[in-house]
Amino acid sequence: MEKGPPLELVDTHLSEYSYIGGHRPTQADRAVLNAVCVPCDRSNTFPNLRRWAAHMESFTRSEMQAFPPHTESCKMDNQLSDLVNKELKVDVAAPNKSPENDKAGNHSKRTENDKDGNHSKGSQNEKGGSQSKGKGKSGKFVLKTPKGTRDYGPMEMAYRREVFNVIYSVFHMHGAVQIETPVFELKDVLTGKYGEDSKLIYDLEDQGGEILSLRYDLTVPFARYVAMNKIDNIKRYHVARVYRRDSPAMTRGRYREFYQCDFDIAGQFDAMIPDAECVQLVHQVLSKLGLGEFTIKINHRKILDGVFGSCGVPSEKFRPICSAVDKLDKSPWEEVRKEMVDEKGLDEEVADKIGNYVKLSGREELLETLANDELLKSSPSAQAGFADLKLLFQYCKSLGCAEHLVFDMGLARGLDYYTGVIYEAVLTAGQNFGEEGPVGSVAGGGRYDGLVGMFDPKKKTVPCVGLSFGIERLFTIYEQKMRAESNKVRATQTEVFVVTACKGMVHERLKLLGLLHEAGIKAEGSYKNNPKILNQLQYAEDNKIPLVALIGESEVEAGVVKIRDTVTREETTIKREELVETVRQKLGGL
Amino acid sequence: MEKGPPLELVDTHLSEYSYIGGHRPTQADRAVLNAVCVPCDRSNTFPNLRRWAAHMESFTRSEMQAFPPHTESCKMDNQLSDLVNKELKVDVAAPNKSPENDKAGNHSKRTENDKDGNHSKGSQNEKGGSQSKGKGKSGKFVLKTPKGTRDYGPMEMAYRREVFNVIYSVFHMHGAVQIETPVFELKDVLTGKYGEDSKLIYDLEDQGGEILSLRYDLTVPFARYVAMNKIDNIKRYHVARVYRRDSPAMTRGRYREFYQCDFDIAGQFDAMIPDAECVQLVHQVLSKLGLGEFTIKINHRKILDGVFGSCGVPSEKFRPICSAVDKLDKSPWEEVRKEMVDEKGLDEEVADKIGNYVKLSGREELLETLANDELLKSSPSAQAGFADLKLLFQYCKSLGCAEHLVFDMGLARGLDYYTGVIYEAVLTAGQNFGEEGPVGSVAGGGRYDGLVGMFDPKKKTVPCVGLSFGIERLFTIYEQKMRAESNKVRATQTEVFVVTACKGMVHERLKLLGLLHEAGIKAEGSYKNNPKILNQLQYAEDNKIPLVALIGESEVEAGVVKIRDTVTREETTIKREELVETVRQKLGGL
Repeated sequence: MEKGPPLELVDTHLSEYSYIGGHRPTQADRAVLNAVCVPCDRSNTFPNLRRWAAHMESFTRSEMQAFPPHTESCKMDNQLSDLVNKELKVDVAAPNKSPENDKAGNHSKRTENDKDGNHSKGSQNEKGGSQSKGKGKSGKFVLKTPKGTRDYGPMEMAYRREVFNVIYSVFHMHGAVQIETPVFELKDVLTGKYGEDSKLIYDLEDQGGEILSLRYDLTVPFARYVAMNKIDNIKRYHVARVYRRDSPAMTRGRYREFYQCDFDIAGQFDAMIPDAECVQLVHQVLSKLGLGEFTIKINHRKILDGVFGSCGVPSEKFRPICSAVDKLDKSPWEEVRKEMVDEKGLDEEVADKIGNYVKLSGREELLETLANDELLKSSPSAQAGFADLKLLFQYCKSLGCAEHLVFDMGLARGLDYYTGVIYEAVLTAGQNFGEEGPVGSVAGGGRYDGLVGMFDPKKKTVPCVGLSFGIERLFTIYEQKMRAESNKVRATQTEVFVVTACKGMVHERLKLLGLLHEAGIKAEGSYKNNPKILNQLQYAEDNKIPLVALIGESEVEAGVVKIRDTVTREETTIKREELVETVRQKLGGL
Repeated sequence: MEKGPPLELVDTHLSEYSYIGGHRPTQADRAVLNAVCVPCDRSNTFPNLRRWAAHMESFTRSEMQAFPPHTESCKMDNQLSDLVNKELKVDVAAPNKSPENDKAGNHSKRTENDKDGNHSKGSQNEKGGSQSKGKGKSGKFVLKTPKGTRDYGPMEMAYRREVFNVIYSVFHMHGAVQIETPVFELKDVLTGKYGEDSKLIYDLEDQGGEILSLRYDLTVPFARYVAMNKIDNIKRYHVARVYRRDSPAMTRGRYREFYQCDFDIAGQFDAMIPDAECVQLVHQVLSKLGLGEFTIKINHRKILDGVFGSCGVPSEKFRPICSAVDKLDKSPWEEVRKEMVDEKGLDEEVADKIGNYVKLSGREELLETLANDELLKSSPSAQAGFADLKLLFQYCKSLGCAEHLVFDMGLARGLDYYTGVIYEAVLTAGQNFGEEGPVGSVAGGGRYDGLVGMFDPKKKTVPCVGLSFGIERLFTIYEQKMRAESNKVRATQTEVFVVTACKGMVHERLKLLGLLHEAGIKAEGSYKNNPKILNQLQYAEDNKIPLVALIGESEVEAGVVKIRDTVTREETTIKREELVETVRQKLGGL
């Protein structure tokens, strides 16, 4: 590899843009990362370059391969631009460098097919890059989706449908109902619910009328719905996108618009029965998706509060200290301790005491041990928490979902509104599908008994417990898994492609399509009057359509149809009136 | 009925509020409508009252019965408030006045059930009223959804799922892929696409960054997607909510946030083949939903332009005159003519000439007649349109979907971007389900060959044809139909309710639930440790759960389970290890 551009040049570029290609990662980032040598000393030179390189390390190789193509959508120094183009050419020529892209579509057949009026499902540029083209370097018109958002193409939607179907089936197994709330709420509804994160809320422009904000999650709208409709109890699910003006936008799948997939149980019930159902549900969804080993970590806000109180944290600092503990899954204890002492003004001694507890994790025996701990024995809060978790363990055993349960004293969950049990599911076998280690949290939740009361004029509350799947992460992992297993997920479900063998057959083709559709069979044909037969057959193969129904003049005259198996290329001639039945038989046997 | 409050009082109230209860229709509107006598003279007295009463007439009786309950969420004169409360008490006492509400839930059992830890699916207030309570008359805190939006409750979502499933199945039958785009777009993307309606676009607040707007439809984002990803051809569907700051917000199901359900074919293909597929698809969806008779009206922008040109309309007035013609489905010709002459400055003579054409509708023979019309014979634009429509009729015949096709010269479609065939489907048998006449348009679309080019820097375009279902209207009609036919749509899909007969059985209940779930059976149980047996059985009946699995101490000891059919109340005792198989058999037989 030749020497890359001077580091200054890249650093300067990155002082203006988050990525080489602008504000989204593209193949240009891979190209430059290949070409430059980022200094590994600990000085402060080239801060933008270092920040960018560190961020790039957060992507797996396959995630990088899936970056959208480079397009010249931001101003770029000529030397940098030349480097990118040169590197990318090398990249394209090298074999097996982008397995995902190879699978994504049928580009080589594309032009040919287009000529004959087949449609190629928009497979080009499937990853739905946020930007694609502009008026060139000097122009102002850049065609893109808003920062932090993206389009989802046909293949991605097909994977999503599969993941959603699994999750919906589990929700229905538990008798959950579905509700839907507006994408925006009165700003007042969201105010005071998210603490520091309130600054991430998208507001709508005041166009004369109410002051509105886009929802930040589905939990607060749910609490508003329960309070507003005076509902005493409900078990509901809600799947929808939420909005956060997070910055930087694009770290490893973190978008400003993303799906949440929530299941909650509201109502005054006996201790831990609904809570255990939530744990069971996480267990079932992750098992059914088959993404490998996972752990469900549990803890209890009352235990944390008990620990904080017993260690000498003043009660007004419980939540800030809790949010420091929450960072333990990403940062080492030393850093968390530093935040407690330096930023949150805790005595070093108190912090160290907390440290002794929050590093602990285990199963039921740890619960026993800690319940008899000298310091915690006298904390009613901690004891209440231990009693809950012991019961939860027992219920989960009866439900058959206790095996993955781990009592983790370091689990804190970020949100302020939790009041009881909290849990978080972590995949531990992410390395099967990506090059990196554990992919982290894929579901989380807990009990929040006070939120509905915040919306009730008389502060009457309805206790709630619920969970949210990190559905965007599940999509990515599921897609990687399916690709790794070479599973055939198709963007369409077409079963039969109707092919005409000679000219002037458009009406015959349409009649056959009408016949198949009438019978409920998924069938397509070319949009050309006189498409070439080979192109039609090729289209069926490229799009993995299992059967072809072929007619020419002689077939029409004789009242027969040729059925061709796309994989074996075996052909059989049948009577037209047997078509539907034959197709059904053949599809049933596939 | 006693004399109501003075009309002045109601008129004054309605000068401040859109409805009696504030800005959403509630039962208070029905109450007042029952009590007041709206003058039927044509004077200008009580304008607010008249406007409100006229608007109320746009609701069917069953729609009114489905209004959310009255709650005191806006300031109200005491006399008016008393009247409302008095009327509503009458209403509640009268039998058979609210059949929908009777069916919606199990309110009478509710308190009892709650005590025993069953959850009643949030059936209360199912219609998801936008407002429900405040701090009373004097308070400021009103708990509500934003103007023009609403929540959707469990039953509504269940109906929606059924309608969507039908539509998705037809989309997949045609080999369509699914895409998704962000809920907001760069404001520039939407600018200049909607003509006068641009003022209805929701803008996001400028919080430092890009200037964004909520999408107004799915067509413009689709065109942006096609151009941005340089897609040559795609057949896609997209179902999502769109946003319009329309005013007044609540005329007969017109919301500011509502679903669109779009199917479009982009690509350079032979004439009328994709267009005929769109007509076929509308035909299939409406047939499968079984909503009664329907008509698919077709026309062609080139025919309209040909008529306008031949009648002497200057070409810069083509679009404004077209948008006047578009109002023919709601207004008589006289009013449309007035708009053409008074507002759009057309000569009376020209308007009358146009009138001769746009009142015509028929089938293929009308196409023939008009193609030979003296005035239109010399219009190349009109002739091109006639040729297209003749071909469309032929293709639809081959596809088996021509029977409902009507060539309607008065069909114009509002949007500027159509360039060819336009169509609109109308239900003609709405009276079967509501008290009113035809419910109007339930699907519409057409060809727009120029839109993608507006996003391409080189103005390279991709011809498109597509359609959009008026899905909110279809939901309402489908729900009315299902209720009218007393079809049992449940909000949940639970198959087995696990009942424990005595105390101390919670673990046994959970074990049975774990067992059933493991086998993929949808099962629920109480959230109470020791629920009463009758309440549990009642819950299963109320929620139409077909089977009950009952265990007491003796059953557990003997290793058996009692299976009870909820409808027949027949009980059989089986071995525990036969439970799954027996349940499957019984469910298969239901």
